[in-house]
Amino acid sequence: MLKSRNYNLSKERLEMFSDGVFAIAITLLVLEIKVPKHEQLEHYGGLYNYLMHIWPQYLAYAVSFLALGVYWSNHHWMFSFIKHTNHVFNMLNLVFLMTVCFMPFTTAILGDFIAEPEYHNAAVTTYCFGYFIPVPAVLIVFLYASNNHRLVDKKLAKSFINECRLKIITGMVLLGIALGLSFYYPNISLCIIGISFLMYLLPPTPPKYEDGYVEEAGE
Amino acid sequence: MLKSRNYNLSKERLEMFSDGVFAIAITLLVLEIKVPKHEQLEHYGGLYNYLMHIWPQYLAYAVSFLALGVYWSNHHWMFSFIKHTNHVFNMLNLVFLMTVCFMPFTTAILGDFIAEPEYHNAAVTTYCFGYFIPVPAVLIVFLYASNNHRLVDKKLAKSFINECRLKIITGMVLLGIALGLSFYYPNISLCIIGISFLMYLLPPTPPKYEDGYVEEAGE
Amino acid sequence: MLKSRNYNLSKERLEMFSDGVFAIAITLLVLEIKVPKHEQLEHYGGLYNYLMHIWPQYLAYAVSFLALGVYWSNHHWMFSFIKHTNHVFNMLNLVFLMTVCFMPFTTAILGDFIAEPEYHNAAVTTYCFGYFIPVPAVLIVFLYASNNHRLVDKKLAKSFINECRLKIITGMVLLGIALGLSFYYPNISLCIIGISFLMYLLPPTPPKYEDGYVEEAGE
Amino acid sequence: MLKSRNYNLSKERLEMFSDGVFAIAITLLVLEIKVPKHEQLEHYGGLYNYLMHIWPQYLAYAVSFLALGVYWSNHHWMFSFIKHTNHVFNMLNLVFLMTVCFMPFTTAILGDFIAEPEYHNAAVTTYCFGYFIPVPAVLIVFLYASNNHRLVDKKLAKSFINECRLKIITGMVLLGIALGLSFYYPNISLCIIGISFLMYLLPPTPPKYEDGYVEEAGE
Repeated sequence: MLKSRNYNLSKERLEMFSDGVFAIAITLLVLEIKVPKHEQLEHYGGLYNYLMHIWPQYLAYAVSFLALGVYWSNHHWMFSFIKHTNHVFNMLNLVFLMTVCFMPFTTAILGDFIAEPEYHNAAVTTYCFGYFIPVPAVLIVFLYASNNHRLVDKKLAKSFINECRLKIITGMVLLGIALGLSFYYPNISLCIIGISFLMYLLPPTPPKYEDGYVEEAGE
Repeated sequence: MLKSRNYNLSKERLEMFSDGVFAIAITLLVLEIKVPKHEQLEHYGGLYNYLMHIWPQYLAYAVSFLALGVYWSNHHWMFSFIKHTNHVFNMLNLVFLMTVCFMPFTTAILGDFIAEPEYHNAAVTTYCFGYFIPVPAVLIVFLYASNNHRLVDKKLAKSFINECRLKIITGMVLLGIALGLSFYYPNISLCIIGISFLMYLLPPTPPKYEDGYVEEAGE
Repeated sequence: MLKSRNYNLSKERLEMFSDGVFAIAITLLVLEIKVPKHEQLEHYGGLYNYLMHIWPQYLAYAVSFLALGVYWSNHHWMFSFIKHTNHVFNMLNLVFLMTVCFMPFTTAILGDFIAEPEYHNAAVTTYCFGYFIPVPAVLIVFLYASNNHRLVDKKLAKSFINECRLKIITGMVLLGIALGLSFYYPNISLCIIGISFLMYLLPPTPPKYEDGYVEEAGE
Repeated sequence: MLKSRNYNLSKERLEMFSDGVFAIAITLLVLEIKVPKHEQLEHYGGLYNYLMHIWPQYLAYAVSFLALGVYWSNHHWMFSFIKHTNHVFNMLNLVFLMTVCFMPFTTAILGDFIAEPEYHNAAVTTYCFGYFIPVPAVLIVFLYASNNHRLVDKKLAKSFINECRLKIITGMVLLGIALGLSFYYPNISLCIIGISFLMYLLPPTPPKYEDGYVEEAGE
């Protein structure tokens, strides 16, 4: 194990890099709210009207900001019981970050086209896709880390691991249904996303250990 | 309390994430100063003229840069007496960051349209709004943290907490008035913003503790 | 040596700055996937069609994201046996970061033009160039650090240093060939890049020390 | 002094925030190298020609990247003998960062217009201005910190402080001359910038202490 510490990234550094990527992705969202050009202002009849007109962009900004914030928060929660890292895990975490960083794009698509009947469906589908893909990515990350307690705390309760897996899979199925429905019933998809968003806002379950909490506190 | 430490974000990590978001938002401001196209240069009669013509963009850049810097500085000051964190607080802090990250957009609107009489009012209103919203957000963050000393240092003086609340509320009322006036008297709003900006530049009040400063130093 | 510690950057700070630059460059990639305008949607026959049509942009995003992630991971691996830093090394590392930060540009070129026969060759050449240049930069960084054990761990095995050099040079030759071929046979170049990409995904070799691993663990 | 530690930013946090801003500003430079549109490709006769044609953008990217890297390196060097911070210093440092973050804009202007005779002068003037303004900002930062050893190490040699001041003022005069000349003789200005750039690449002077280096090592 000492050997592996020599050339692997430490868990802390992986967390900090992930933090940086999250902080940047969340801040880039504002760049997708477009500053109008003169032609647009004339078309919409002034700056007030234009700013009112782009309300879906504000909504998309707010939802995606909080969603990314919740993903970040959950990522940290997961790293509270992941104790080690290795090359494969670093690469899987990278794939997860890749899905997270895609969100500014799908958010921009939603904000720009949700209010146009012609493109409404496709805009919602795109957003559902962007909201969905981090979940299978996080499932793979978690399965890899938790399989035979590969990288998680050795005393983490098996029941807790199973509970987590079930939760992630439930979320994945739910958002998968939202994605599938979005082609025909985009508004139902938006409702499902809204519900899952509210569920994500709830505090994450505290991890459970075989020997109880005191054991963990000594680490 | 040990239990909660296991799965909550540490205060330090929340601070670092917030730092990252502030650093990115402040640096993105420069992207809103637009590099001209050839048509624009011809329209304004050359690059010198163009660069002179966009002075409001420089002003908006400078004011927003310093304003975000002051918000960042105050955020840290607040975290000097906030000792713990929890899930709700993380979410409230996220909402605060969401209001902060909106500023590059309102800054761009101000810089682009303040000098055009037709859009002057709306540009100032937009900027006032962007300058105003972080204040109620920070009020909620502070009320949540300070209520019954929930997350702040247990020995923080009640008089100091009340003083802080009063200060934030005063700022909120002042900027709220600026926002309201901006629809009709945008220049008065700009003056109020200027005054509040200068006030923010003053050093923050040192926190007061029930048992005096020495107690705190031992922490 | 104490003297030099006073005014040089610490190795940790250089690593953190490099981490920050990597995290930003990797996140900026998404900004190159362009949100469509109405004209484009009409031209391609709707949002679904447009989003299908730009598949090369997603591919370019994914490949460059993982490539930058691997460069980041290798950078850390190198810093696990680099023990000191100095001004020249800081500047060489800066040049390396400069080549890394160029990748969002070459990625955008690839994603925008690879699917157009007219510009296919040039797009691939550009991407090959962006993929190639960090390798000579990293070679210079490594040669400077490892020459006479200038900045690396004094007990790092010479055989390991030679192995690393050989590996970097092999990669450079391989990608140099890909770059050269891209002018005439761009698809062969893409294959070579794909192979080298898969090779980079393998875990890096653990560093070897003259006195064995135990010695290192004591540092 | 204990009192002031309670509510001021620590020096470390100020350094980290500055690091973050530098890392972002340096990475944003690549966004100013514009990906071409189809009309441009047709106008320039293909992608190869276009990519050759925009060589001034690459040059501007490289010079500004290294210049920002050197500013970052010097900022750290300065913080190796600055031992404390206070509110005023934080604000002055913020003004310095504001001048630094302006560079992506002036770099874009240089890259876009230096090769066009009509706008050559103005492009060089703009770049000179962006290269010049951080120097007076850093002078103010340094004068404030070093005045009566306000924030610097109490044992820092007065001769060293004077040497630093002289160096900064020399650089400021030199770049001020470059800025002034740029209106009429832009190429001479570019030469001066090139010379000062090479000078900046030299390693910074090690700080000198009244009691010698050993004293410092004990800190």
